[in-house]
Amino acid sequence: MDELRFHRWLEGAWKLPEDWLGIGDDAAVIPLTGAALLCTDTVAQGTHFVAGTDPVAVGHKAAARNLSDLAAMGAEPVAALVSLVLPRDCALELPERIIQGCRAALDPWDCPVVGGDTTTHEGGLVVNVTLLGRAMGAEVIRRSGARVGDVLIVSGQLGGSLLRRHLTIQPRLNLARTLMSRAIPHAMIDVSDGLLLDLQRLVTASQCGFKLDASRIPIHTDTNELPGDALERAFTDGEDFELLFAMDPLLWSEFEQSGETPVPLTAIGVVTAQGQEIMRDGLPWWPRGSGYVHH
Amino acid sequence: MDELRFHRWLEGAWKLPEDWLGIGDDAAVIPLTGAALLCTDTVAQGTHFVAGTDPVAVGHKAAARNLSDLAAMGAEPVAALVSLVLPRDCALELPERIIQGCRAALDPWDCPVVGGDTTTHEGGLVVNVTLLGRAMGAEVIRRSGARVGDVLIVSGQLGGSLLRRHLTIQPRLNLARTLMSRAIPHAMIDVSDGLLLDLQRLVTASQCGFKLDASRIPIHTDTNELPGDALERAFTDGEDFELLFAMDPLLWSEFEQSGETPVPLTAIGVVTAQGQEIMRDGLPWWPRGSGYVHH
Repeated sequence: MDELRFHRWLEGAWKLPEDWLGIGDDAAVIPLTGAALLCTDTVAQGTHFVAGTDPVAVGHKAAARNLSDLAAMGAEPVAALVSLVLPRDCALELPERIIQGCRAALDPWDCPVVGGDTTTHEGGLVVNVTLLGRAMGAEVIRRSGARVGDVLIVSGQLGGSLLRRHLTIQPRLNLARTLMSRAIPHAMIDVSDGLLLDLQRLVTASQCGFKLDASRIPIHTDTNELPGDALERAFTDGEDFELLFAMDPLLWSEFEQSGETPVPLTAIGVVTAQGQEIMRDGLPWWPRGSGYVHH
Repeated sequence: MDELRFHRWLEGAWKLPEDWLGIGDDAAVIPLTGAALLCTDTVAQGTHFVAGTDPVAVGHKAAARNLSDLAAMGAEPVAALVSLVLPRDCALELPERIIQGCRAALDPWDCPVVGGDTTTHEGGLVVNVTLLGRAMGAEVIRRSGARVGDVLIVSGQLGGSLLRRHLTIQPRLNLARTLMSRAIPHAMIDVSDGLLLDLQRLVTASQCGFKLDASRIPIHTDTNELPGDALERAFTDGEDFELLFAMDPLLWSEFEQSGETPVPLTAIGVVTAQGQEIMRDGLPWWPRGSGYVHH
């Protein structure tokens, strides 16, 4: 792999504003007013994708996971760093195709790659993407702001992502933008490790509980092609990258009626003072898999 | 490896200012005025350290390389992200010791770890550190600002880092701070890939040439314990992490006489309009290794 040729190709790939510094110095410089948001995510061969996966899809996944993190904060991307650990003696085509995949995810948000690092090792491909972001509104949305009585809402459909969707993540930045301008949630998280686990993270951070109606969970049809209970999968399968948020019920009612959402939303339950309850066919029910607190 | 326990340990490890968000949400939030600087660096087992290296030293190296990048821009660290790709089934001790090493490098600069990512794979250890930084002065120092007639100055001693110093990098942030307040260089770079290659990067970015006096090069005594010509090693060995800068000759003369430098500095040559020349014992000389342009 001709690292120098790759770097030259990278340097010329983005037109940056005049007061930015991108690839080519010891650090990138990005003028910013207000707070800097930072998130990072690594995908590794054998863990997040199998050997032989299209490198474009790998790059897309690494970038899109981070975009989903920013969306969950009510934030948008400003600039990206892409760090590659490549198998030794790989072809120049590999890093170029990974960057191509990153761009497919980042370009729609005008987010250039301003730096990174490329090295090689004996093992499989590792791709790290780090994003600098900024709040879309006056404040960022945390996990910890949910209030008793809030409606719990999730975007899209859940479960079965492993079948194929985990490589074509659609980060919900448009939804986040709509929410930040029309109906600001009290708390938000992206569903990366399964609805149950991420919901538990949200209510734990908010020192609240939840009560869900299992019949309301939007189950993805991909679960039909996989073994096991579809509802169970919707609760515990990872890598959905939908947004889960807690919102004032009146605000939710208005927003729902406005029909302004860019992606289907479903109210799946409510925030309670304590306890974690799921009702299925009128009886308490609990998924067998995952979920780190259960009381 | 109990990832949850590791994350809880991490979350409690830094006391952040009240308006910051660190580990525990989907992104970190760091209030910042002016421009954000971003740099990132990855170290991988078998490439940047051998299997069996003390994980504390690995963490230190990953963080210190980035600190050196910021120093080269005349910038200081604000916050760090640490992403680990661990061998499967490693002990919890491994990530904890890596973080301990990162802290040894970052704590002296009050730079907390505000986020990161931990995953596992089949291969060897990979550590990525990303730093958010801010300029120490009104402007950052680039590689491209060198002017004909500038003195070329390098800190410390060069060569033989592989013997042991590559694991105990002393990033020259104190020097950068002194320079930014007393004698601002026209151009600067950190010597990560060997004096010759990094000098070439600086003059190429500045569209200039250089003329060096080989007898002036500060050769590290570590080179005596290694085979080959010591001067050759001082020019081409990597991972010195010293600062190389171009400065107005009058300013340099004043600064040198003030004796205010926190680390030894040596004037090794001058910036010329074009060409790349090294004189050794009165004759033109050129290292056999490395160096991507030679004319």
